[in-house]
Amino acid sequence: MSKSSFKHIDCSIAQTLEIVGDWWTLLIIRNAFHGMRQFDAFEAQLGISTNVLADRLRKLTAHGVFEKRPSAHDGRSFDYRLTEKGHDLYPLIVSMMDWGERWAPNGQGRRIELVETATGHPVSTMAVRNAAGDALTPQEVTARPGPGADETTVALISRSDA
Amino acid sequence: MSKSSFKHIDCSIAQTLEIVGDWWTLLIIRNAFHGMRQFDAFEAQLGISTNVLADRLRKLTAHGVFEKRPSAHDGRSFDYRLTEKGHDLYPLIVSMMDWGERWAPNGQGRRIELVETATGHPVSTMAVRNAAGDALTPQEVTARPGPGADETTVALISRSDA
Repeated sequence: MSKSSFKHIDCSIAQTLEIVGDWWTLLIIRNAFHGMRQFDAFEAQLGISTNVLADRLRKLTAHGVFEKRPSAHDGRSFDYRLTEKGHDLYPLIVSMMDWGERWAPNGQGRRIELVETATGHPVSTMAVRNAAGDALTPQEVTARPGPGADETTVALISRSDA
Repeated sequence: MSKSSFKHIDCSIAQTLEIVGDWWTLLIIRNAFHGMRQFDAFEAQLGISTNVLADRLRKLTAHGVFEKRPSAHDGRSFDYRLTEKGHDLYPLIVSMMDWGERWAPNGQGRRIELVETATGHPVSTMAVRNAAGDALTPQEVTARPGPGADETTVALISRSDA
């Protein structure tokens, strides 16, 4: 792996990858969405090395995706809980689930079904949608430079070697 | 980086990461959504090494995310075009944009604005939604084992050390 940093790339996707793009990180966050909180539980479930797990949790806590606080059950151990910033990764996580179910299925049907707790009905497939709720294809969407676009972004989205 | 494979983990998220989780890969796909198709263009825009880019494009083509075909402009060069499998990564890409704009902004406003081409109106923020289109928080959604759940998945989503 040639690992580098995307910190200098002024792009929302690069900045997101800088925080959650390390190998293992999104599986740690997946587990947290399933209610997992303790170091030992992550380690056992993922079969990840102690060093790598410690590195990932340290980084995610430093970035404010997790907060680390004393466990309610055992004052000597710690819980890692998703913050608001962490919870806001939910659409990203579910987009990955949907894509993996569609394009890397195991042949026996969905591994996990997500339902709205209040109604028991399945949640909608993740899609880019207009205000009316219609799913839009990439071809139906136009990217425009916003007020925060730098020259690189303007060049990227204005190009046409298509 | 301790890089390993998630191929053996029967989880839709792990399988997705196995295909698109390598460092640089999602930035390559980002560029493809902006219409980029040629090796030299990816290399110049990303500032990525030739070897890493070649490895990523080879892998993505092998997985059917890109198809490689002779360029219309120059029969000696090749275009890398997103397939349907590739286009289906759009919700994942836009989820990353939204998260990065919210949690890693550059202080000058959105870098890119996505609008519905037909109306010019902004697309909705990515969210897990019910059939009525209401955004759901993780707390409002329940994960259930589907027909394809293995024992590991059942154990993961049924646990409660919370």
